[in-house]
Amino acid sequence: MTLVDIEKLNIRTKEISHLASALSLLEWDTQVYMPEKGSGGRSETTSLLRTLVHQRFMEIDADGLLSELKKKLDNGDLGGKEAAIVREVWRDFERERKLPEAFVKELAQTTSRAHKVWEKARKESDFGTFQPYLEKIVELKRKEADLVGYGDSPYDALLDVFEPGMDAKETGRILGELKDFAVPFLEKIKQAEVSIDEKKILGDFPIEKQKEFNEFIAQKMSFDLEAGRMDVSTHPFTINFHPQDVRITTRYSIEDIMYSIGSTIHEAGHALYEQGLPHEHFGTPLAEYISLGIHESQSRVWENQIGKSKEFWQYFYPELQSRFPNPFKDLELDEFYRIINKVEPSLIRVESDELTYNLHIILRFEIEKQMIEGDLKISDLPDIWNQKVKDYLGIDVPNDREGILQDVHWSGGSIGYFPTYSLGNLYSAQFYNQAQKELPDLSGEVSKGELAPLREWLREKIHIHGKQFTASGLVKEVTGEELNPNYYTQYLQEKFSSIYGL
Amino acid sequence: MTLVDIEKLNIRTKEISHLASALSLLEWDTQVYMPEKGSGGRSETTSLLRTLVHQRFMEIDADGLLSELKKKLDNGDLGGKEAAIVREVWRDFERERKLPEAFVKELAQTTSRAHKVWEKARKESDFGTFQPYLEKIVELKRKEADLVGYGDSPYDALLDVFEPGMDAKETGRILGELKDFAVPFLEKIKQAEVSIDEKKILGDFPIEKQKEFNEFIAQKMSFDLEAGRMDVSTHPFTINFHPQDVRITTRYSIEDIMYSIGSTIHEAGHALYEQGLPHEHFGTPLAEYISLGIHESQSRVWENQIGKSKEFWQYFYPELQSRFPNPFKDLELDEFYRIINKVEPSLIRVESDELTYNLHIILRFEIEKQMIEGDLKISDLPDIWNQKVKDYLGIDVPNDREGILQDVHWSGGSIGYFPTYSLGNLYSAQFYNQAQKELPDLSGEVSKGELAPLREWLREKIHIHGKQFTASGLVKEVTGEELNPNYYTQYLQEKFSSIYGL
Repeated sequence: MTLVDIEKLNIRTKEISHLASALSLLEWDTQVYMPEKGSGGRSETTSLLRTLVHQRFMEIDADGLLSELKKKLDNGDLGGKEAAIVREVWRDFERERKLPEAFVKELAQTTSRAHKVWEKARKESDFGTFQPYLEKIVELKRKEADLVGYGDSPYDALLDVFEPGMDAKETGRILGELKDFAVPFLEKIKQAEVSIDEKKILGDFPIEKQKEFNEFIAQKMSFDLEAGRMDVSTHPFTINFHPQDVRITTRYSIEDIMYSIGSTIHEAGHALYEQGLPHEHFGTPLAEYISLGIHESQSRVWENQIGKSKEFWQYFYPELQSRFPNPFKDLELDEFYRIINKVEPSLIRVESDELTYNLHIILRFEIEKQMIEGDLKISDLPDIWNQKVKDYLGIDVPNDREGILQDVHWSGGSIGYFPTYSLGNLYSAQFYNQAQKELPDLSGEVSKGELAPLREWLREKIHIHGKQFTASGLVKEVTGEELNPNYYTQYLQEKFSSIYGL
Repeated sequence: MTLVDIEKLNIRTKEISHLASALSLLEWDTQVYMPEKGSGGRSETTSLLRTLVHQRFMEIDADGLLSELKKKLDNGDLGGKEAAIVREVWRDFERERKLPEAFVKELAQTTSRAHKVWEKARKESDFGTFQPYLEKIVELKRKEADLVGYGDSPYDALLDVFEPGMDAKETGRILGELKDFAVPFLEKIKQAEVSIDEKKILGDFPIEKQKEFNEFIAQKMSFDLEAGRMDVSTHPFTINFHPQDVRITTRYSIEDIMYSIGSTIHEAGHALYEQGLPHEHFGTPLAEYISLGIHESQSRVWENQIGKSKEFWQYFYPELQSRFPNPFKDLELDEFYRIINKVEPSLIRVESDELTYNLHIILRFEIEKQMIEGDLKISDLPDIWNQKVKDYLGIDVPNDREGILQDVHWSGGSIGYFPTYSLGNLYSAQFYNQAQKELPDLSGEVSKGELAPLREWLREKIHIHGKQFTASGLVKEVTGEELNPNYYTQYLQEKFSSIYGL
């Protein structure tokens, strides 16, 4: 009987997932191929379909099917996969149900306007014009937290959308440890006075040839091109319609080939997670990712632990040299490795290195947490921002465009999103440490370009479980302990101490 | 009050049209970019969305809004655009309403299976395996005609989907006149013994350079690339999401550049119609095409009257010669013109010339009309087919693959579709004749590559009206008389008499 009910629920969520797939295709096309004048009609099509998906989801319990299953879950009558399905569908349902349509509409309209204002404000480097919109967004997000409910901090309710199970306090503790390591460590690196000339790897790289090399790497990573595509867009992203159609994009810089390579490896890491979800369970939580942090761990482990390692380039650098003799022919692997790992505090998050990236995240987390908890005035934000950049990175912010206005997230109402980037880094180090234990020849394999063993390990340990575990449950299952920042700080310390001779 | 009701109706049809746009994007992506393994999930997404569109449309009169408007229309209380809107929405609604869901489902399942069987049967050139499926389809299509209702012939009810207002008798009369001209005229051409060596225009044409030339032509035709795209697919097609996003595809043959040029001009002709529909009325019949025949007239006038004319190539041939000196440098325009207009009876419809194409259509129309009227046995089809090919085209059909099994239409249940191809040719000649009267320097403009004046004329006379007129109403409005096959036969006679010295 329960099995039949679960099947009924699965049919409903599967239909909703197919509608969401259509929506994803609309979004993919908008970013990748839509002609300019198509945008007006497209945004209407998209918003209609989004409403439809929401309505369908709200109807899912019209006959009480989900509530009945939830009761069974609470009584302990469900186990294993069934329990996970009901737990996760209920979680989403309960949250969405608590948000009245009028509120959702107001938030959507506010962020839609705010996004346009932010674009203009950033261009003109003028926080003042954006400020009232951000104030309104913060007010609405606080209201969202009230509607949804929370324990300690209203920030918990927002973070929970992106990183279920994590809260402000725990995130603060973990990122605090990371900050306590990174700030003084960065100071040491600065004083090391090792000179690295990153201009040596700039050149004139034809896009077609870059494409071929990126495809070569993605295929070596076992990204399945029969179940996915690689295209071009202004901002690189990964999107999936179902596990057998997962698409990534990158952007090409003629001058800097490392941009497209880094973004391809990052997005392909995300894509391997999506392709690794069990497609036979498509439309249920069993074929969904756990959290943004876990998703990011999958892109980061490939981008950093692998894609910026010496072993990886032992195999791929000769390939790069033969495809692009200029400028790589006469540049030694060791120097190339130092260049792509150069640590240098910069103003812009998305252009920063592996170490300082986290400081960008931490300052954003600290600020947005305070914004939501009401502990600061929005008008003070630029000063607070600039002070933190000075304190953590040691540099001066010359203007709002390169400071407080650089990221799109807040203008779209995404508050609670930033910390998942650094959580992803932390998860990735802990997972990778475990992979090294369980695959004793991992380094050797990577240095021969054999990346499939790691992909298999990630698939078996992480991907195939879908949403059966929570993030912290998965970390414990895979590594035997809770999320522990030491793995990441140790990784950073070893890697950069070696590069900077500390 | 009425205006308010019309606005309400428009809101409903507009929503349905946006869902149909999403469906069209799914179909475009399936043909153009979807990776192989994506097809399973894609067909589920597509069929779900199709069901949703149907359901929404069936709900359109749930509160009697449409019925009320229909009453007003019948009482003569509506005029102009409002009358057209109600007339056309009611037309579609009434037809769909008469088909029970179980029937629609059975037909969809049957054609889905039949399509796969047809693919295999064609490959193996074995009509026998396809026969029982075609029998079933014909039985269901007869049932559809019964459900929908008809006057004279059940074929009327099927034709009406594709060419509203046209019936079997009138189509038979018109295509009969065309046949009475074309069969003896073809005989004369055969006896003319003019020798034309079409191999002279074959070569080795890099696809990138073909693409550039095709884009050059499409832009000269005023196809708006900011409101559309050109891509590649196995079978060329045009699809629109709304008038500001209209996409065409072609296929490239390395050896035969005329294939992509012909298909680009044809599809761009369709696309100009779609881009010319008044986008402010998107979602209502005022921004929909009238019939497949009228649509085809827009592709054919560009493909044939323009794209195979001496004037057109007076401008474009020097361009072709300079872009592809081999093989065109030493080939005279006159000979090139004769080659691209060579008349030669062939087995395959889609490879046939401007004149014999119609005989392919006429024989299919005669056969499918008899199928539906129950005047022949499906098992006799190959013999009947082969006899007609012999009678009309004078050639022997060596096998079913190149005979009765060559077209996809019947396997998909599209019976009543074929005649719209030749009706399109007939409309195109009558429209073009009128355009020549109203634009006295048309030939001169075309010979200078100035194609915009014709596009403007077609837009003002045809495109902007959407579905306000019926097909025959439009022809009368634009040309002052009913559809008259003489314009087309006269065009064919003059053109090919000159080429073949008759």
